[in-house]
Amino acid sequence: VSVTLRPDVVRLTISCPDRPGIVAAVANTLAEQGANLIHADQHSTDPEAGRFFMRVEFHLPNLLEREHEIASSLAPLAERFAMSWQLSAETELDTVAIFASRSDHCLLDLLWRWRRGELPMQLAFVASNHETLRRDVESFDVDFHHVPMEDHALGERELLTLLAERGVDLIVLARFMRILSADFLERCNCPAINIHHSFLPAFAGGDPYRAAYERGVKLIGATAHYVTAVLDDGPIIDQETAPVSHRETRADMKRVGADLERVVLARAVRWHLERRILLDGRRAVVFR
Amino acid sequence: VSVTLRPDVVRLTISCPDRPGIVAAVANTLAEQGANLIHADQHSTDPEAGRFFMRVEFHLPNLLEREHEIASSLAPLAERFAMSWQLSAETELDTVAIFASRSDHCLLDLLWRWRRGELPMQLAFVASNHETLRRDVESFDVDFHHVPMEDHALGERELLTLLAERGVDLIVLARFMRILSADFLERCNCPAINIHHSFLPAFAGGDPYRAAYERGVKLIGATAHYVTAVLDDGPIIDQETAPVSHRETRADMKRVGADLERVVLARAVRWHLERRILLDGRRAVVFR
Amino acid sequence: VSVTLRPDVVRLTISCPDRPGIVAAVANTLAEQGANLIHADQHSTDPEAGRFFMRVEFHLPNLLEREHEIASSLAPLAERFAMSWQLSAETELDTVAIFASRSDHCLLDLLWRWRRGELPMQLAFVASNHETLRRDVESFDVDFHHVPMEDHALGERELLTLLAERGVDLIVLARFMRILSADFLERCNCPAINIHHSFLPAFAGGDPYRAAYERGVKLIGATAHYVTAVLDDGPIIDQETAPVSHRETRADMKRVGADLERVVLARAVRWHLERRILLDGRRAVVFR
Amino acid sequence: VSVTLRPDVVRLTISCPDRPGIVAAVANTLAEQGANLIHADQHSTDPEAGRFFMRVEFHLPNLLEREHEIASSLAPLAERFAMSWQLSAETELDTVAIFASRSDHCLLDLLWRWRRGELPMQLAFVASNHETLRRDVESFDVDFHHVPMEDHALGERELLTLLAERGVDLIVLARFMRILSADFLERCNCPAINIHHSFLPAFAGGDPYRAAYERGVKLIGATAHYVTAVLDDGPIIDQETAPVSHRETRADMKRVGADLERVVLARAVRWHLERRILLDGRRAVVFR
Repeated sequence: VSVTLRPDVVRLTISCPDRPGIVAAVANTLAEQGANLIHADQHSTDPEAGRFFMRVEFHLPNLLEREHEIASSLAPLAERFAMSWQLSAETELDTVAIFASRSDHCLLDLLWRWRRGELPMQLAFVASNHETLRRDVESFDVDFHHVPMEDHALGERELLTLLAERGVDLIVLARFMRILSADFLERCNCPAINIHHSFLPAFAGGDPYRAAYERGVKLIGATAHYVTAVLDDGPIIDQETAPVSHRETRADMKRVGADLERVVLARAVRWHLERRILLDGRRAVVFR
Repeated sequence: VSVTLRPDVVRLTISCPDRPGIVAAVANTLAEQGANLIHADQHSTDPEAGRFFMRVEFHLPNLLEREHEIASSLAPLAERFAMSWQLSAETELDTVAIFASRSDHCLLDLLWRWRRGELPMQLAFVASNHETLRRDVESFDVDFHHVPMEDHALGERELLTLLAERGVDLIVLARFMRILSADFLERCNCPAINIHHSFLPAFAGGDPYRAAYERGVKLIGATAHYVTAVLDDGPIIDQETAPVSHRETRADMKRVGADLERVVLARAVRWHLERRILLDGRRAVVFR
Repeated sequence: VSVTLRPDVVRLTISCPDRPGIVAAVANTLAEQGANLIHADQHSTDPEAGRFFMRVEFHLPNLLEREHEIASSLAPLAERFAMSWQLSAETELDTVAIFASRSDHCLLDLLWRWRRGELPMQLAFVASNHETLRRDVESFDVDFHHVPMEDHALGERELLTLLAERGVDLIVLARFMRILSADFLERCNCPAINIHHSFLPAFAGGDPYRAAYERGVKLIGATAHYVTAVLDDGPIIDQETAPVSHRETRADMKRVGADLERVVLARAVRWHLERRILLDGRRAVVFR
Repeated sequence: VSVTLRPDVVRLTISCPDRPGIVAAVANTLAEQGANLIHADQHSTDPEAGRFFMRVEFHLPNLLEREHEIASSLAPLAERFAMSWQLSAETELDTVAIFASRSDHCLLDLLWRWRRGELPMQLAFVASNHETLRRDVESFDVDFHHVPMEDHALGERELLTLLAERGVDLIVLARFMRILSADFLERCNCPAINIHHSFLPAFAGGDPYRAAYERGVKLIGATAHYVTAVLDDGPIIDQETAPVSHRETRADMKRVGADLERVVLARAVRWHLERRILLDGRRAVVFR
């Protein structure tokens, strides 16, 4: 992987009830630890009674050795502001598993961007309920697991085993055509990002291009979102639309939509890996 | 009105089951009548068993005198192909009524485009269930009628009277915040175009910006559609979206959305006036 | 004007060579003065040897009385970091003059947004080298000055007098078809924002829609930029494009382009008024 | 290749001075030959003294056997209207060569779409002035030729030999970083489509992302165009832009731009293969 990862660059993300003084307190604490702030983003849903979100990039040599010390220095802040926080070095890569079915466009685009260095991640494996894409995946020197899903519970157990073996931090559903159970989502112990081929909340559920065609919409869309136990209902990370007219058949819609899907999914995955996404209930704060 | 209307230019729109030979038959019939074809658009939902749509612009002097003759020449075609057709000169302007409530952005934009010459129509009047916009409308030398809608049935009767008096061909709902009854839609005897402030079918019904905010979508939209008895369900004419992020408040969404709404509505109205829209059940064929 | 201006909200913008410690130093200084930080944006062109830009919104009662004190507290920082800074209360509105010629679309849009409360400014006057738009402007209860430009030097002198009399902070060129001289730009003592009807740097200079048509481009654009002595060359604030095809005549391009121009210009003016724009040589940093 | 090619579907493209009666004459001639018209597009630059363009799709069994007969029936029309025309069956695929250098994004996207069935063509070979992309190309079972270009004239001669051997109908320059000579373009005997990584005419020539960054534009673009002897000056087929801000580095611009480039190039190639593009001097008529 040829991603340019900056050594000694650390990301801190913060979420807490909004109150005066948070930024100054965080900036001071980091300065006292010798951190040089590179970039900071913040957002408040309401300065009065809202929630506060912050993402800070700073330069700090030897994070691994000093992680405990930094954590200790943040602890009083966390208590004072009822803050949850997460700290990670840019060079600590998430381990990612991709689930796919038969469609290749989203999967190949992720593999290609990963090889090109656009996605800072360790790619653990690709799992699919079909054999179709094995050759494509293996040509990238990535493990491919065929996990049949006819027996859904059995398939999910096999997927859970694979995830656990490889210590996966993020699942990406690249047009995986099976619905993961609430039980699976609880046990997998990591977030999952899905791409849905419509501008949600329109056309949730199966066959959205057919539904879009029949409704006669003048634009089609794609939505990347976190997966929750309710189908196509999790926090939306990114969406994009493209215009269509009466001349586009359903096959044309699929073709145009595929170009949206792969771009939107790749962007959402990158933002997640770069720690740019914080959740505000059902809404996603994305520090682009 | 300063629209450049081409004298002796006629629009013919056609809709029928698709079968071989329609285009040649129409082209011949028009040629025999001395018409010079300027432009033609056509669409078939399926060459086998689908529906065929066509819009032809041609040059033919003295249409008014020859309208009966042209109609007679089309009659055998109409029978042969089970064709419905409509003929109109570009200089015959539709008479239009605009219904508004308190929001000014769509209304002012229509008035301004009409004055500028972008909308080839006779503007009969603006009706509103509030007095708020009277001064704005009258500054364009357009009649303004305040029609209270507290008693909905009474209000609709008054609107129907106004429409009948002025021989209105098209109603434009420029953020009119009352729902017209099925009875009204039957009696008004002309189509109505509405602008809805979401990308339908998402967020149909009231307060779509609030719903969009709460769902955390990453784009907002506007939809122009024909009005039917089912709320926000008629054939879609045009849609557009704009990106939003966590930083946009509901007020920001309204501001960004207002810019979409006025452009999308004006475009839909212009296409209708130029006879560019043909209906295919619930889908709109728009020859742009 | 119905803009919702938050009392006691202050904007501080900062520009200096990038060095470690700036954010913490600023945050501390503001905290010591009792300011509650509401929002902060920052940008570094390069953490090593680049330039640093920051915009902070904070809550501080009685700014007017305490302005001297705040300035004093920032002085040591400014010296230490070679920082230039600007401080302003959200309720202190810029005084703005609009220059127009005969086209109404950008001008009317600015007037309408100003009335609607989207543009936080005092509108001093509209000046035009034609009488055409007087009635439109006066219907908004705004002063209209006809300043003939046949004698360019004389016209510019008259404009300078008007600007000085009203203490204008910003000039907006809303399709003003005369080129302001370098001498005028020096003497007017305030920035000017122009809208150019192309995606600069393509089609700088006169008649860009004609040039775009002849080149056969597949999209047209609009660019808002600060005015410098070199024509169409100043820092770009915002740009947008729309697709066109062979079917769009030059008149269609003008119509489509007008919709872009008014939106892009209004957005640029709003960002300027909200102190969201900082200059990095010829590039504009826009904290949206 | 899995493209769905409709047997017995024929495309006729026509270009001539505009005059009354062309459409009817063409429709009649085709009807007399037993052709069933499926779709027709047309465009006139000016009904008075302009040029007329038409693209017709029709159904006609046994084109190969009847090609001479059809041509004979069109000959009188061609003479009468000074018409140039081209006839081709949808199942007759163009033979295409792709030239690339070291960048993989456009090339891989074309290969993938071709495999997927989106591009109706015979892929003759990929030629590159570097060895870098050999493995990628060969994994699609496509011939890869390394043609060094240090000696430019020698390289061009080798390319011409390859083109002639395979009877290539279209060259696609997928980020090929060498400038083909006027002499080559004359001898290659087929059109070439290039992708340029800017919204032409802005930033023609080398390193457009650097130039875009330095100019501080707020959108970047990609342009697909036919190659002529003047660099980046040929007829534009398609363009698209994406927004950028001060936060995008040059590397970010390249990443965002790569997504535009591959989509725009693939679209232009498809339209060419489907006979949707007719030239009107320096402007391209694209019947989408």
